[in-house]
Amino acid sequence: MFRPLFRTIPPTVSRFSLSCGKKYASTSTGQLAFDWEDPLGTMDLLAEDEIAISATARAYCQENLLPRVLQAYRDENYDREIQEEMGELGLLGATIKGYGCAGVGNVASGLITREVERVDSGYRSGMSVQSALVMGGIEEHGTEEQKERFLPKMAKGKLLGCFGLTEPNHGSDPGSMETVARRHPTKQGVFLLSGSKTWITNSPIADVLMIWAKLDGKVRGFLIERGEVRSGLSTPAIKNKNGLRASITGMILMDDVEVPEENLFPSVEGLKGPFSCLNNARYGIAWGAMGALEDCIDRARTYSLERKQFKGNPLAKYQLIQKKLVDASTDAAFGLLASIQVGRLKDKGMALPEMISMIKRQNCDRALVNARALQEIFGGNAVSYEYGIGRHVANLFVTQTYEGQSDIHSLILGRAITGVQAFC
Amino acid sequence: MFRPLFRTIPPTVSRFSLSCGKKYASTSTGQLAFDWEDPLGTMDLLAEDEIAISATARAYCQENLLPRVLQAYRDENYDREIQEEMGELGLLGATIKGYGCAGVGNVASGLITREVERVDSGYRSGMSVQSALVMGGIEEHGTEEQKERFLPKMAKGKLLGCFGLTEPNHGSDPGSMETVARRHPTKQGVFLLSGSKTWITNSPIADVLMIWAKLDGKVRGFLIERGEVRSGLSTPAIKNKNGLRASITGMILMDDVEVPEENLFPSVEGLKGPFSCLNNARYGIAWGAMGALEDCIDRARTYSLERKQFKGNPLAKYQLIQKKLVDASTDAAFGLLASIQVGRLKDKGMALPEMISMIKRQNCDRALVNARALQEIFGGNAVSYEYGIGRHVANLFVTQTYEGQSDIHSLILGRAITGVQAFC
Amino acid sequence: MFRPLFRTIPPTVSRFSLSCGKKYASTSTGQLAFDWEDPLGTMDLLAEDEIAISATARAYCQENLLPRVLQAYRDENYDREIQEEMGELGLLGATIKGYGCAGVGNVASGLITREVERVDSGYRSGMSVQSALVMGGIEEHGTEEQKERFLPKMAKGKLLGCFGLTEPNHGSDPGSMETVARRHPTKQGVFLLSGSKTWITNSPIADVLMIWAKLDGKVRGFLIERGEVRSGLSTPAIKNKNGLRASITGMILMDDVEVPEENLFPSVEGLKGPFSCLNNARYGIAWGAMGALEDCIDRARTYSLERKQFKGNPLAKYQLIQKKLVDASTDAAFGLLASIQVGRLKDKGMALPEMISMIKRQNCDRALVNARALQEIFGGNAVSYEYGIGRHVANLFVTQTYEGQSDIHSLILGRAITGVQAFC
Amino acid sequence: MFRPLFRTIPPTVSRFSLSCGKKYASTSTGQLAFDWEDPLGTMDLLAEDEIAISATARAYCQENLLPRVLQAYRDENYDREIQEEMGELGLLGATIKGYGCAGVGNVASGLITREVERVDSGYRSGMSVQSALVMGGIEEHGTEEQKERFLPKMAKGKLLGCFGLTEPNHGSDPGSMETVARRHPTKQGVFLLSGSKTWITNSPIADVLMIWAKLDGKVRGFLIERGEVRSGLSTPAIKNKNGLRASITGMILMDDVEVPEENLFPSVEGLKGPFSCLNNARYGIAWGAMGALEDCIDRARTYSLERKQFKGNPLAKYQLIQKKLVDASTDAAFGLLASIQVGRLKDKGMALPEMISMIKRQNCDRALVNARALQEIFGGNAVSYEYGIGRHVANLFVTQTYEGQSDIHSLILGRAITGVQAFC
Repeated sequence: MFRPLFRTIPPTVSRFSLSCGKKYASTSTGQLAFDWEDPLGTMDLLAEDEIAISATARAYCQENLLPRVLQAYRDENYDREIQEEMGELGLLGATIKGYGCAGVGNVASGLITREVERVDSGYRSGMSVQSALVMGGIEEHGTEEQKERFLPKMAKGKLLGCFGLTEPNHGSDPGSMETVARRHPTKQGVFLLSGSKTWITNSPIADVLMIWAKLDGKVRGFLIERGEVRSGLSTPAIKNKNGLRASITGMILMDDVEVPEENLFPSVEGLKGPFSCLNNARYGIAWGAMGALEDCIDRARTYSLERKQFKGNPLAKYQLIQKKLVDASTDAAFGLLASIQVGRLKDKGMALPEMISMIKRQNCDRALVNARALQEIFGGNAVSYEYGIGRHVANLFVTQTYEGQSDIHSLILGRAITGVQAFC
Repeated sequence: MFRPLFRTIPPTVSRFSLSCGKKYASTSTGQLAFDWEDPLGTMDLLAEDEIAISATARAYCQENLLPRVLQAYRDENYDREIQEEMGELGLLGATIKGYGCAGVGNVASGLITREVERVDSGYRSGMSVQSALVMGGIEEHGTEEQKERFLPKMAKGKLLGCFGLTEPNHGSDPGSMETVARRHPTKQGVFLLSGSKTWITNSPIADVLMIWAKLDGKVRGFLIERGEVRSGLSTPAIKNKNGLRASITGMILMDDVEVPEENLFPSVEGLKGPFSCLNNARYGIAWGAMGALEDCIDRARTYSLERKQFKGNPLAKYQLIQKKLVDASTDAAFGLLASIQVGRLKDKGMALPEMISMIKRQNCDRALVNARALQEIFGGNAVSYEYGIGRHVANLFVTQTYEGQSDIHSLILGRAITGVQAFC
Repeated sequence: MFRPLFRTIPPTVSRFSLSCGKKYASTSTGQLAFDWEDPLGTMDLLAEDEIAISATARAYCQENLLPRVLQAYRDENYDREIQEEMGELGLLGATIKGYGCAGVGNVASGLITREVERVDSGYRSGMSVQSALVMGGIEEHGTEEQKERFLPKMAKGKLLGCFGLTEPNHGSDPGSMETVARRHPTKQGVFLLSGSKTWITNSPIADVLMIWAKLDGKVRGFLIERGEVRSGLSTPAIKNKNGLRASITGMILMDDVEVPEENLFPSVEGLKGPFSCLNNARYGIAWGAMGALEDCIDRARTYSLERKQFKGNPLAKYQLIQKKLVDASTDAAFGLLASIQVGRLKDKGMALPEMISMIKRQNCDRALVNARALQEIFGGNAVSYEYGIGRHVANLFVTQTYEGQSDIHSLILGRAITGVQAFC
Repeated sequence: MFRPLFRTIPPTVSRFSLSCGKKYASTSTGQLAFDWEDPLGTMDLLAEDEIAISATARAYCQENLLPRVLQAYRDENYDREIQEEMGELGLLGATIKGYGCAGVGNVASGLITREVERVDSGYRSGMSVQSALVMGGIEEHGTEEQKERFLPKMAKGKLLGCFGLTEPNHGSDPGSMETVARRHPTKQGVFLLSGSKTWITNSPIADVLMIWAKLDGKVRGFLIERGEVRSGLSTPAIKNKNGLRASITGMILMDDVEVPEENLFPSVEGLKGPFSCLNNARYGIAWGAMGALEDCIDRARTYSLERKQFKGNPLAKYQLIQKKLVDASTDAAFGLLASIQVGRLKDKGMALPEMISMIKRQNCDRALVNARALQEIFGGNAVSYEYGIGRHVANLFVTQTYEGQSDIHSLILGRAITGVQAFC
């Protein structure tokens, strides 16, 4: 088995050992010292169990994900066993209570997400789809029967989900979707789904496909179980991506795919169905982007200290390079605080979608801008994937774009601030 | 008297009425709604008494400072009664325990600072000098006798202080200061101070001048009491400033000014003396800049909703204008969270100088950048001081520059992050 | 008389002595050397007479305008003799052929403009209004009789003009103007103008007011001669501006002001009337902004070399400061080349309005951004007008805003590039 | 044969047919109209033969390079026949007079470079190495015998060169190079080269390797002919690059490689040898980056017009998208003018290295920034190489980095402007 250590304790993150956590940096003399990995002392805001969960997630990611990402990224390969490993650790659907899920708080969930994306945004995407979009969607919109049927297996990573909303001609504007559902002309209690979805993470390997389609003109949610489908479904992979290559992406092509009535979400109608799922995923992206940025800072800092130019001085002695590190560190620290804040409010039911738009937009934007600036420190070596920075830069462009492109979030927030909408 | 209401209760902010506080915005239907004045729900992080203090400070500032700032700014006039009013309200030296001070926490103190700078950075400067630099310096470095002699009157605003560190040739590099102290050749227990200081807020009107000078080659702190000085001291005002005009600034010219030994800080030596004072002041600036930025957002938002162009649409309908509002709101919300975080750590003795560098630098930089962008919304009207935005922009440039110019903080932080110093 | 030297030669700039011109920098060894004042060797693109004109304009501006700008800016005073001095030198309406004007090319005209704005944007504004907007408008739209009546005296600066287009409620959108003209109910050949204009440079001192008003629903141009007006006209100054203070600005309030028919532009109708004037003015602003930026570079470079901090090193040794100088120099050099290019095309009748939008927008934007960055080099001293940089920064904000705010030019260009209009 | 058309005319670009050239855009009514592909009318600055050369190069690149770049980029494959095709067309070493080279001016040469990079920066890199670095280096530093031996075959693309300067530990600081040459202990007139070079474009396929090495402590230039080498030389390819994948890159590992004396550049010593080559290459990069940026604009503009969102409006109707297009178009137009200016000066021997630093730095910086902004327009589709934009973005990062990273050029220019050097 993959990680026998974790087989002896219940596979929920909430009971992980605390050994990796540190509460605050201090010098040998016991005095407080500046910790470049936590410049604003955010560790002080975390509970013991949150620190423990974060430490466990970090250990798993650094030990088990980091060693395979370089090759996976090159080969555009996604190892679906990762989901099972994450399932064993209790990382999937971690905020869900019951159904074999860990039931942790939103900050703990964010900390996990940050650790996964510290390795690679693609791995985080794979997890987000499973956890936030599909499991989260079933938990929020599904019947009790649907929850019991799907969630426990998904929590273990035995059953993989994907989330079918975006269409080839409708990215930022899902309300114009063309995928339709209609009642089967002859079979009672059966719907027929037709249409195409694209840029769907995990679609080629998913067992359960959550499809948003118009039924009688209203957007509704359906769960296609691949194992039950006899015809009309194909999920070709999209290859040769220039980012997020350690994640598998594909289309979903549906031509009268049959779905039984018990796989329809019973009551949610309109875009609030998919949007509530996206809201959870966006919250996670805000956290994840900070993880990726922190890894860029770490790599750039190390490189700037080791690389010597001109009279043997390290690059770190250049003012122009220090400024890049400082800008990035500041944005990472500020972004982390904002993520924690929204997480705490989310636990209380006080996190509004606009708040999530704000942290998703800002953290993705700043992660990307800073990662690009840090990439310059590596000079020619940046072109080599071995240094990791180029991979993060390419990934972060995608995270800025998906689940609400940055400009779209600007308009969502602009509307919230002014009360006036500026979508054309 | 100025505000009789406050004469009946002890003049400490910690007991202010709570009436102005709101905990969270909600719609008429009881549902939570996005509050553009608090986009990330930071109100939820504040204690009841902090909200009360903030509300009281806001009421005072909006009712008593705002109406006079336009004229004061035009005339380059600073009304020293303001300090007495603030003293009555308990706003001066508010974090100091005892000596007639309010003894509030660092977040409450930051909230006060933010309210003052919401009106004008110059008013905040006047308060910061009194509170953070001079009162804070006496509290930290002074003898018990010095504290009792000065602090109670300063807390009331009856005695004004100024802080003399910067010299004409030494701005970012105070270690090279040229002001010297020497023992009087004949009078026992008397020092003679000679040298010049410049860009000193309040120097022309200060009663107590805290002067940093080299004694036997080491930086030491002295308190000149203007009333006791017979010769050698002049404090000419610097006029025709292009920013911070509602604050009075001047030089301090000293030619063998006599200072008695009891006005020397007994033990602090070197730059850590003035730097610990600056640290407190910088912490306040980080808060204040957010207040100024929030006022810019408020003014720009209102203008964009009221100003109609092209077919009667408000400017707020322009995407390019919405983006400016969103960027500014995001930076204000993030900066506020970071200020609260450092304030909480400061209460625990865990706020490192580098943390304060980080929030001072970032909040000032972002306040300035966003205020400038928002200024564009006003078109030609921005050139008129009546709209307030031009005054904030001019002020914020100064706040970015003083108490550690932004680039200097970059190098301080760069050194902390890399361990390598890059000052030339 | 002001400058007797120029009274002995015809007052046209095209015959100025060439003595101040230099063709290219060279070292003492005769080798070419980098010239920070002309980094891309644009001097090589200029004809001898253009160099001579530029040198004469520079001499006048540095010797006669620079010494008075500091006081004028403080006092918000505009000395109308400046126009007479410029008139004597042939700087007014310099591109107009005949009518006592110099008849130089558009590049020469741009070079003059740059030299004036190198001193102050307000002085350049005063000249632009006279030359590009009013004289240019009369030359383009006026009858032969109007030209002969006004242009020669305007060329001498004896008669001052102003340009009344912008209204209090219609800045970026002049098509919605409310000022109207109607035929006098009883007096034949007389129009009555009513309405208000604001932010009008020189309105309080102008002798000839070019007013754009709707006659029978169509925008038409009228010339009000103040000396002939008996009632209904007032032109109050707008005071307390935070930029462009060496230029006088005011309103034009008209209540049934009588204008004789011979003062109506006979044939131009609609916005193309004022827009063709604005086009010429905007062309000049593109040049002027480069002059202001170049002066900022000069001042910042000198300051950075003279100011020593930390171990006696000049600020110029800081990488962060060098970068600011390099960015600014690059934008100045690129902007100058673009201005020359459009000037050459203008001489051939090939300069499209969109080209002028592009250089006006870009040069103003870059001048402002860089001037602000350079301002940081001065630290606290930037707050003092003596260093000049703060004045340029304040002025350049206005130049970015007027005659087409930057965002408006973005939309004009966006429409030209895509064929789709995005004005709300 | 590849392009028989060109076999019937002399293979020099200077005689290409003019058919593709256009002088200026005009509408059907004969009126001038704004041309988004040439916003500032730079076509007007070009001579007829330059327009013809540009048109021919564009035709070749669009017809012959564009169709293969997608696959080449995916496979990291560089087809060396491209050099032979370019050779047939006279595109290699085009500015060299004699030796079978076209002998065109520097602007014509820049126009060619721009067309090649309009397709792909990697193809331009392959050409630049051959033309500017190796052929240019031989022409400048070589003996007459060396020129005759190498240039004609290189001009035909029959013999490929590479340029070995950068070492694993010395990128921005070649003066610290470790590669050494020593006289063979026994063989008269033979040198032994030892050391390693990295990030060398074309090294794995080059026939002639120009190696810079220290001989008696001084940097000297050597030509290794691969066909003559019996031992000690290997040139492994560097694979898995994240940019410039249509160009082949490798190392050069030398262990006592024998080089005969006649392959040593006779007189050039020190860094001025390689630097004069780099200067020519950098000049070309400034042009090339504009080509890549122009292609990004073209692709983004088309996409924004074709892609509909929200009520069927094209993306081009969004203000936020128009602004990205306008910013990019402006920088492209300005950058092109600056490139032409430096080209004209280069023809006169007046182009200083600092001028080339300025246009290389600015054009690469702006191309990259704008390409990234334009990439956002494509939303999720940007992740697909089919849209081309992601490839340009990845390539342009490399062009910003190589042959003088942007920050290094900032310091070169900062030194030139201030006279103070700020390299640590």
